[in-house]
Amino acid sequence: MNFPDITSRQNERIKQAAKLRSARQRTKQGRFLIDGAREIGRALDAGVEILESYVCESLCTSPDAQQAARRLAAANVSSVTPEVFEKLAFGERTDGIVVVGKTPQRRLEDLVLPTHPLIAVLEGLEKPGNVGAILRTADGAGVDAVIVVDGQTDLFNPNTIRASLGTVFAANVCTATVEETLAQLRQWKIPIFATRPDAQRLYTEIDYGDGAAIVLGAEAEGLSAAWHADDIAGVHLPMRGIADSLNVSATAAVLFYEAQRQRRGG
Amino acid sequence: MNFPDITSRQNERIKQAAKLRSARQRTKQGRFLIDGAREIGRALDAGVEILESYVCESLCTSPDAQQAARRLAAANVSSVTPEVFEKLAFGERTDGIVVVGKTPQRRLEDLVLPTHPLIAVLEGLEKPGNVGAILRTADGAGVDAVIVVDGQTDLFNPNTIRASLGTVFAANVCTATVEETLAQLRQWKIPIFATRPDAQRLYTEIDYGDGAAIVLGAEAEGLSAAWHADDIAGVHLPMRGIADSLNVSATAAVLFYEAQRQRRGG
Repeated sequence: MNFPDITSRQNERIKQAAKLRSARQRTKQGRFLIDGAREIGRALDAGVEILESYVCESLCTSPDAQQAARRLAAANVSSVTPEVFEKLAFGERTDGIVVVGKTPQRRLEDLVLPTHPLIAVLEGLEKPGNVGAILRTADGAGVDAVIVVDGQTDLFNPNTIRASLGTVFAANVCTATVEETLAQLRQWKIPIFATRPDAQRLYTEIDYGDGAAIVLGAEAEGLSAAWHADDIAGVHLPMRGIADSLNVSATAAVLFYEAQRQRRGG
Repeated sequence: MNFPDITSRQNERIKQAAKLRSARQRTKQGRFLIDGAREIGRALDAGVEILESYVCESLCTSPDAQQAARRLAAANVSSVTPEVFEKLAFGERTDGIVVVGKTPQRRLEDLVLPTHPLIAVLEGLEKPGNVGAILRTADGAGVDAVIVVDGQTDLFNPNTIRASLGTVFAANVCTATVEETLAQLRQWKIPIFATRPDAQRLYTEIDYGDGAAIVLGAEAEGLSAAWHADDIAGVHLPMRGIADSLNVSATAAVLFYEAQRQRRGG
């Protein structure tokens, strides 16, 4: 790979790959971009199928980046010039590697769960960075599964991937409709707790020991009507200051860790 | 105010105010910008001195924005055209009001604290959005004071103000050097807990009842050497997934709410 394989920004494969910055193109092509050594490593660990790899040797210098490049050796690696690479990369930070992955289909029915699982349900979160941050916290807390219930949410948005540190690729993260999710949680007989600022019960009054599905919604709109039901308990965090709400990723962190504190003793 | 007072983007006051987007100019002028009805309302509540106010009537239409404009009536309000306003406003969302405030001097020695206070200490956080998010969570959890210990941190960065929802203006948020902070915490005899991924004690094993200073640092660099001392306990959150750390604002949320759960019963 001493002389770059691709030197033109007009190369057809580069043009198709660069289009994957758009959500519409990701859906159309069934593919998405992964930028960064750590994120690519986690995608490989999670069994994401890598279709194309682009390495810019002059940028791919850190040990992490070189290790990721080695792991990709079997996966159709093309070396590219810095000018070509710039067309594929995101933001300032770069490891000199971008790959095109086949969009994983993570479905509710494929989840493998322990007895009495702790599940997070995210509905209608607009900001990909928020979804990514919550996935990272869910991973840290040891949440058993995360269900993203919103046809609008593109799980493999670059900002989601980055904010999640690549934990979005884990097999226990899936997408589903609200109806599918509610039906499945009820069939599994998992107690459902919907976070609502106006809910009566404090998050510390909940017993998470028999499993729990913690449902989090967008700060502005809140949860949809489907989560108001007799078998669903509302839950809230105390607000002791001048602002009337927490950021949803802060709410998620407090709830996930409190549930696990109770369940596993810290 | 039917005909705008200021119609030229070259107006000298507008030019000086627009410069306040730069941190260097904020320091030099001792002034800063506040954009948004909610943020301006919280600045007024907190007693921040407003030096100039700019209202674009055609954009200032929401009830919140109009209420903020009424509250500013005494504070040197100028009406401006949309073109002039654009030079002062941030991002897409706008309430049609921007004000110039005098930078508050919030000092450690001015803090008013209860017995056995809960204090958050933030060191070296680079991202203003992270600082703002933590201030918002500290407000929600009822943390008694937040000390930002880093000469580099510009507390009145627009992203900090926005992410904090204006809670940054509260009188219990101050800046100080590491040395001042440590000396003051020791004088107050407040137990100090430094968050470190390699710390031995779990956050749930700590007794926060006698007051606590929770020290949080940047994810990459961690805390400076000053926080390694015999009278400072290291504390960490369990990490149960594939990623090896949480976002600092998630760590903050878990610790603040756990401390308050113990101290005040949820």
